[in-house]
Amino acid sequence: MKKKEHILIIGAGLCGSLLALRMGQRGYRVTLVEKRPDLREVDQDAGRSINLALSDRGLRGLRLAGVEEAALALCIPMNGRMIHPAHGEPFLSAYSGRENEYINSVSRPGLNKLLLDAAEELDSVSIIFNHSCESVILENAAATFTNHATGKTVTMKGDILIGADGAGSAVRKSMFQDRQLLFSFSQQWLTHGYKEIEIPAAKNGGYRTYKNALHIWPRGEDMLIALPNLDGSFTVTLFLPYKDSDYCFENLTSAEKVIEYFETEFPDAVSLMPNLIDEFFTHPTGPLGTIKCSPWSSYGKTLLMGDAAHAIVPFYGQGMNASFEDVVVFDAILAENEGQWETIFSKYESVRKKDTDAIADLAVDNFHEMKEHTASALFQQKRKLELEFEREFPKEYHSKYSLVTFNEKISYSQALRQGRAQDKAILNLLDDGSLPKTLSLREKLRLVQKTTQELLHDDAVAQNLK
Amino acid sequence: MKKKEHILIIGAGLCGSLLALRMGQRGYRVTLVEKRPDLREVDQDAGRSINLALSDRGLRGLRLAGVEEAALALCIPMNGRMIHPAHGEPFLSAYSGRENEYINSVSRPGLNKLLLDAAEELDSVSIIFNHSCESVILENAAATFTNHATGKTVTMKGDILIGADGAGSAVRKSMFQDRQLLFSFSQQWLTHGYKEIEIPAAKNGGYRTYKNALHIWPRGEDMLIALPNLDGSFTVTLFLPYKDSDYCFENLTSAEKVIEYFETEFPDAVSLMPNLIDEFFTHPTGPLGTIKCSPWSSYGKTLLMGDAAHAIVPFYGQGMNASFEDVVVFDAILAENEGQWETIFSKYESVRKKDTDAIADLAVDNFHEMKEHTASALFQQKRKLELEFEREFPKEYHSKYSLVTFNEKISYSQALRQGRAQDKAILNLLDDGSLPKTLSLREKLRLVQKTTQELLHDDAVAQNLK
Repeated sequence: MKKKEHILIIGAGLCGSLLALRMGQRGYRVTLVEKRPDLREVDQDAGRSINLALSDRGLRGLRLAGVEEAALALCIPMNGRMIHPAHGEPFLSAYSGRENEYINSVSRPGLNKLLLDAAEELDSVSIIFNHSCESVILENAAATFTNHATGKTVTMKGDILIGADGAGSAVRKSMFQDRQLLFSFSQQWLTHGYKEIEIPAAKNGGYRTYKNALHIWPRGEDMLIALPNLDGSFTVTLFLPYKDSDYCFENLTSAEKVIEYFETEFPDAVSLMPNLIDEFFTHPTGPLGTIKCSPWSSYGKTLLMGDAAHAIVPFYGQGMNASFEDVVVFDAILAENEGQWETIFSKYESVRKKDTDAIADLAVDNFHEMKEHTASALFQQKRKLELEFEREFPKEYHSKYSLVTFNEKISYSQALRQGRAQDKAILNLLDDGSLPKTLSLREKLRLVQKTTQELLHDDAVAQNLK
Repeated sequence: MKKKEHILIIGAGLCGSLLALRMGQRGYRVTLVEKRPDLREVDQDAGRSINLALSDRGLRGLRLAGVEEAALALCIPMNGRMIHPAHGEPFLSAYSGRENEYINSVSRPGLNKLLLDAAEELDSVSIIFNHSCESVILENAAATFTNHATGKTVTMKGDILIGADGAGSAVRKSMFQDRQLLFSFSQQWLTHGYKEIEIPAAKNGGYRTYKNALHIWPRGEDMLIALPNLDGSFTVTLFLPYKDSDYCFENLTSAEKVIEYFETEFPDAVSLMPNLIDEFFTHPTGPLGTIKCSPWSSYGKTLLMGDAAHAIVPFYGQGMNASFEDVVVFDAILAENEGQWETIFSKYESVRKKDTDAIADLAVDNFHEMKEHTASALFQQKRKLELEFEREFPKEYHSKYSLVTFNEKISYSQALRQGRAQDKAILNLLDDGSLPKTLSLREKLRLVQKTTQELLHDDAVAQNLK
């Protein structure tokens, strides 16, 4: 049997670690290179996205590599959004009308450690930390790195090089600069930035607010969210415009102004965050961007995966899940085409890119939906009807959110097409008064399904030209 | 009265020259800097887009600067597309059912010379050639240039700097590299490249094929077009995939193969191009890209305009027209806000960007429409019906093409919204059999208008969430 190739993976974050583990399990020799120190030894990332939402597509990737159970042990189920309106009591808005459909809050470093431990157990995988990739020789699957311990430059070469080095990918930059490739590229920033604040655990180690939900304080232009951690704390994230708003990062420059803002907009949250001011002024303000590009591979030697190929904003909770699903899709194509890397890369992109494009667009849509959640009565009516459909007809109706989050067998692009058509159908039927109380829920469902099919049909006819 | 500012304009192409002329007319001191030699003295651009389609929006810009009549003297009217099908006789497909609606073939260097001459006549405008912009100090409205005559580096500074330096803009690159700006940017390449070939004038100085049309040989995946020049020649452009096709730039590497391809696909064109082989192998193959970005300005000092801000593919014939319309829109905002540059720049972008985004998307759509023109019977029926509407009800119906090309008072973004809804309405009504011969043309128009309004309404209801 032909000896399997040596795979050089740049970036030992969530995607790179899972990929290294899976490629190692398949018998490839893997070298995994990370610019930062080993996060199992050195604490890092203070104030930057320390927890994430893990759902079905991500779990599928972990299952493939045999680490799903271990990951679930790190998870806190979140059954819905706990909405904290500007006026009135908080209320829980379920993610689904089906009880078994929920998402999980998980610690990014915790999950990363688990994946690194599992990969390191394999003889075929070696992991090198503290080496940052400076440039890539794309056609040779080789890269030069700076060793942060010695300050020296070293070159490493694989048979294949995979860039899983995140939104700021050095591998992607090398592809961008290669004029031969005609590299299509887009980076789109939201007008908002984000900042993380902590709700510490209660004195007894319990939770200071309801544990099993993703908390949201939607305020139209800005928004606060909070996800629970295993230690009783919550990680709170503020999403706020950089400028041109009554309150924005540009003008929240004094403790008084920050207090005024939080007391005005989020009074029930202020008392839960004792270190608000200190953290507000010491934690970094991060930008929120979407990155798309193509081609994902070059010269049959080098491939981009995860955020390096498709960074998305966090508002669908799908960034990590999409990256783990990348590994699942790639693994299946690899299994059928071993050794034919050019074919593997081109099949992978042709199958996968339309889906990562779709989740990128859905995530931006959801940013607007989340922060304006309470503003639209029509949206609330739609959401109520959808939950009734899901409860009464669990096999017949899935909301856009359910299609994206809980239906790993439906691709993101199908979920986008079907979900947007459903939303449009329901909103228009409600707006027309075509769903009166005199109709039974079954009759309403039939009408929504019929209208959805008509909308999809009309789009298909119009697009046949393209 | 306060002395007016010194405007440093980078790029003396079509947009930069018209802008310099207009700003000079407004009394600003203008320095216009161009990297290439003066095209009035040195012939250049062999084999690269030497003619363009000038239509209403572009003419409006020229009118503003008082040079419309002079420009029209360089124009050849094109009343429609002369379609050369793979089988059967060529036929003329009018651009509009209204006789006064046509587009004009104009020489790029000819028009550029006219604008440079007019700008140079003003005392307030000075033009410097052979200086290529290397980098820009955005916050100072200053830039460094290499003087190609001496090889030396010089720095120039204005009160305001405007980058009209085209799709490869150096000013935009400086903005891309400024991390403070959170610069959103996208470059999207088509899978096709282009190459220009000449149909020379006939021996008597006449035209070898019908003069007053834009000729198209649509072949599904590839396409040939030809625009007439004043000297009796036509400039032919081949649009062909780079790779992965029976015939593509990657495999058209021998004279035999090129002849085989043209004889197979474009037999009636071959005899018109005596220097086909020579030109095919000596003229460059150009890429086709769309560029979008934001913000267009930085620090209230520096602005992008024309292709530097929004390069588009040529398939709507709107690249130059959009750039000239930029000058019209900018000029009106400038007139109302003189001296307040930050306000001028932000108003200009907020008014204009949605329109240049729209024409960029329309131009990509039209690429597919043009090359697949003959493939869809439904499209042919739609086009026939639209021409009847325009002929019978010239004030009541405008096709998407007419809205974009002949209706300067309707913005590109309105044209996109209305035009796409109309297309979708007609295609679905035709597909449903809802426009039978028993209906009068007036009844058909009413049905199309009603369905269009319904589609626009449904979209608006669904988008209220966003």
